[in-house]
Amino acid sequence: MADFFPVLRVLGALLTFFSLGMLLPCVVSWVQEDGLIHVWGISAGAAFVSGALLWAGLRKFKRELQPRHGIFLVSLTWVLLPFFASVPLMWALDDIGRPINFTHAYFEAVSGLTTTGATVLTKLDDLPLSINFWRTFLQWLGGMGILVLAVAILPLLGVGGSQLFKAEIAGPIKDSKLTPRVKETAKGLWGIYSTFSIACFLAYWVAGMTAMDALMHMFSTVSLGGLSSHDASFAHFNSGWLEMISVVFMLAASCNFALYFIALRKRSLRGFWRDPEMRATIIALVGGGLVVSAVLWSKGIYGPLESLRYGIFHTVSVASTTGYATTDYLKWPAFAPMLMLLLSGVATSAGSAGCGIKMVRVLILVKQTLREMTRLVHPRAVQPVTLGNMVVDNRVIFSVLAFMLVYGVTIIALSMLLVLTDLDPITAFSAVVASINCTGPGLGDIGPSSHFGVLTDFQVWVCTFAMVLGRLELLSLIALLTPSFWRK
Amino acid sequence: MADFFPVLRVLGALLTFFSLGMLLPCVVSWVQEDGLIHVWGISAGAAFVSGALLWAGLRKFKRELQPRHGIFLVSLTWVLLPFFASVPLMWALDDIGRPINFTHAYFEAVSGLTTTGATVLTKLDDLPLSINFWRTFLQWLGGMGILVLAVAILPLLGVGGSQLFKAEIAGPIKDSKLTPRVKETAKGLWGIYSTFSIACFLAYWVAGMTAMDALMHMFSTVSLGGLSSHDASFAHFNSGWLEMISVVFMLAASCNFALYFIALRKRSLRGFWRDPEMRATIIALVGGGLVVSAVLWSKGIYGPLESLRYGIFHTVSVASTTGYATTDYLKWPAFAPMLMLLLSGVATSAGSAGCGIKMVRVLILVKQTLREMTRLVHPRAVQPVTLGNMVVDNRVIFSVLAFMLVYGVTIIALSMLLVLTDLDPITAFSAVVASINCTGPGLGDIGPSSHFGVLTDFQVWVCTFAMVLGRLELLSLIALLTPSFWRK
Ligand SMILES: [K+]
Ligand SMILES: [K+]
Repeated sequence: MADFFPVLRVLGALLTFFSLGMLLPCVVSWVQEDGLIHVWGISAGAAFVSGALLWAGLRKFKRELQPRHGIFLVSLTWVLLPFFASVPLMWALDDIGRPINFTHAYFEAVSGLTTTGATVLTKLDDLPLSINFWRTFLQWLGGMGILVLAVAILPLLGVGGSQLFKAEIAGPIKDSKLTPRVKETAKGLWGIYSTFSIACFLAYWVAGMTAMDALMHMFSTVSLGGLSSHDASFAHFNSGWLEMISVVFMLAASCNFALYFIALRKRSLRGFWRDPEMRATIIALVGGGLVVSAVLWSKGIYGPLESLRYGIFHTVSVASTTGYATTDYLKWPAFAPMLMLLLSGVATSAGSAGCGIKMVRVLILVKQTLREMTRLVHPRAVQPVTLGNMVVDNRVIFSVLAFMLVYGVTIIALSMLLVLTDLDPITAFSAVVASINCTGPGLGDIGPSSHFGVLTDFQVWVCTFAMVLGRLELLSLIALLTPSFWRK
Repeated sequence: MADFFPVLRVLGALLTFFSLGMLLPCVVSWVQEDGLIHVWGISAGAAFVSGALLWAGLRKFKRELQPRHGIFLVSLTWVLLPFFASVPLMWALDDIGRPINFTHAYFEAVSGLTTTGATVLTKLDDLPLSINFWRTFLQWLGGMGILVLAVAILPLLGVGGSQLFKAEIAGPIKDSKLTPRVKETAKGLWGIYSTFSIACFLAYWVAGMTAMDALMHMFSTVSLGGLSSHDASFAHFNSGWLEMISVVFMLAASCNFALYFIALRKRSLRGFWRDPEMRATIIALVGGGLVVSAVLWSKGIYGPLESLRYGIFHTVSVASTTGYATTDYLKWPAFAPMLMLLLSGVATSAGSAGCGIKMVRVLILVKQTLREMTRLVHPRAVQPVTLGNMVVDNRVIFSVLAFMLVYGVTIIALSMLLVLTDLDPITAFSAVVASINCTGPGLGDIGPSSHFGVLTDFQVWVCTFAMVLGRLELLSLIALLTPSFWRK
């Protein structure tokens, strides 16, 4: 156990930083005078004290972390932070006479922090502003954490071939220690993230949202979260301009943030066109949107222009794992929502806040499969798998393939578990897919016009687990379950 | 093109042999005097002449076959034989005033030869005996072909890691040429197949079936096909004894036939207990049956003993890819039929007439995933994947993983195609899964009390394609689509 003390020490530091974030809803509450300032203030204080105690109390356990410590750290973080995020949510809702249980509060917090953007709440328009602020802000905070997790921490651990995700933006550092490289990478990514955030906020504001709506929907957009402060989601605004702005920022936020940083530093856009993952992501999102538009038009759901507007907005929204909606797209031919949901599992790039398989893994898998096909016909052919100019090592390919397998088996196993609790198969399957890909809305009973509150508590917990699992690239959490993890 | 003449020559030979099989329904027709003797006789003659012409006409193109020739041969065989099998079926049904179109006739023939056992026909009890005989006999013929295909031909091609399936029953042959080894292996496997067939026929007969029913259901059982001459399938007999006999033979036929041959030659059963695939197959089938029984009992569908009878029979039936039923199990809690259908994709052994992924691949995938998990925690760990006493080469593992990927992507793509034709998602998905695994009955509109005739012609063709794809271990057919296949 003492072996893991250094991990708890880092966790304490993270919690301390996290508690500072809780001061923002405090400010909102103070300005809006919604009577919840004590909730945010006391919760922030409690989180700060807990974090600081953990940090200070274990300060003598400062030590370099090994891979298994890293796995333990990220897993524990995604369990503990939602706890501290959910307590004020529960308290605030109780204060305004709309109590929810811990299951729902924890789900809502995990949904925010993982940028899933699924909700168990209704009548969002009637909620005090500080609550909606907290819900949406959690996504933005989560997005920050995920960017660093995906391209700086998981690659060091080699989870599911995530060596591929490594952001080379920190430049060559002779010292092989973890900390300086992660720090540099984090700074670069967060710079881009903040720039996008400001641009998105301004665009929404100028195009007609109130400042608070612009802020909250910016949180949901750049993090690909998708939570809204309105029950009608984006339909509340009924504005083609806002939808277009949203599409642009969702597309931008679905690509690898490290690419923007490199383009900025090199003052050249050539990196974009050379990056196969970026091309594939844009093609998948826009191409998928065109296919859905074509289906809507050919099946006579809308006229040509409306088909394009609805098709592109919803496909980019769902497939980028954001999950905004302006209509109940489950009323469309089933092919459309199913394609959108399937795309959400593959379309986003590594190094974005997107979730699921990630496009770079898909490219590896496709190339590896083609190689096997060639080998079948010409057994003696020798052909390396390449991505851009890089030759991909067999070791990485094995890792990606293992990820894919665990991904598939997990979806089937969790869906079957939900079916065993008498949930209908479509709802069960889509709930797991929408959770594990951090998409948000699913099919059946949990479509865009519904919410996860219709599920039983046990079913909600399964979805909560699936969200964390998806966020941690599955393997890191599952590795915790293997006996070899606990052997020194 | 001339490059493929030797392939066509072998195809001619196969067709000639196949035409001899058509003499059996001729005999049935003659004995039963059902007025269809001319149909079978003329069709047999036409097939014989076509085959003989092809064989003789291309006799100067006798040459050793390369892998690509092998792939071309098996693909072409599975397209051409169903054609010659479907013509008499269409003709006979037309003669008795119940015409079906070519789409349905071809589907029925493919369903038989691939041992899928799905049907587009109704009122089976009213059909002339020679038609039902031909339908069920096609499965038995298909089973013969599949045994040799799976353990003697595909392993030579290395399709989807099928090197693993290689039956070592031919003993060491110094000459590395294909023919003698395949011939020896075929003889051994067919010996076991025939023995099982006789035993199964006698058991059914003694336990109360008519001789013809015993014969036709033996065809369906040992080949894991599942077609029946009765609309009520096994419920027609309403006999616990017959169900038990059926379960025993389905279990036996789900294991690798080469194991029986080796046990016989070595006069020792030790090979059975040492074979990890056999153990896993039996555990999956019987264990799955116990789980389903437990669900049926705990959800109050039946009492304890009935739950066991229904649970075991249907799970072994569906999961072994046979597909007999004595009740409409879609009325059970959805978990049960879904589990049964999922198991049908994994449970049967290589070297049986079962289809789908095959248990040996599943074992490799599980072990490979565990290895990756260990590597995640202990990056420097070196650990080979073993199966029994054999170390599995990385090359084979890659091949198995490629198979898995193509399998998953094919199921999703074909399901989406069916959904695009406005089929409901559950029916679409289950139709593809039940076809590609050669199981037979699916969920939704094509459950055990329904049939594939409710689908549109296009949808039937998609299922037909899926059956052939599953039978050819996917990759061999897909390899035909790659440009490198057609390059010399
Ligand atoms: K989302
Ligand atoms: K079958």
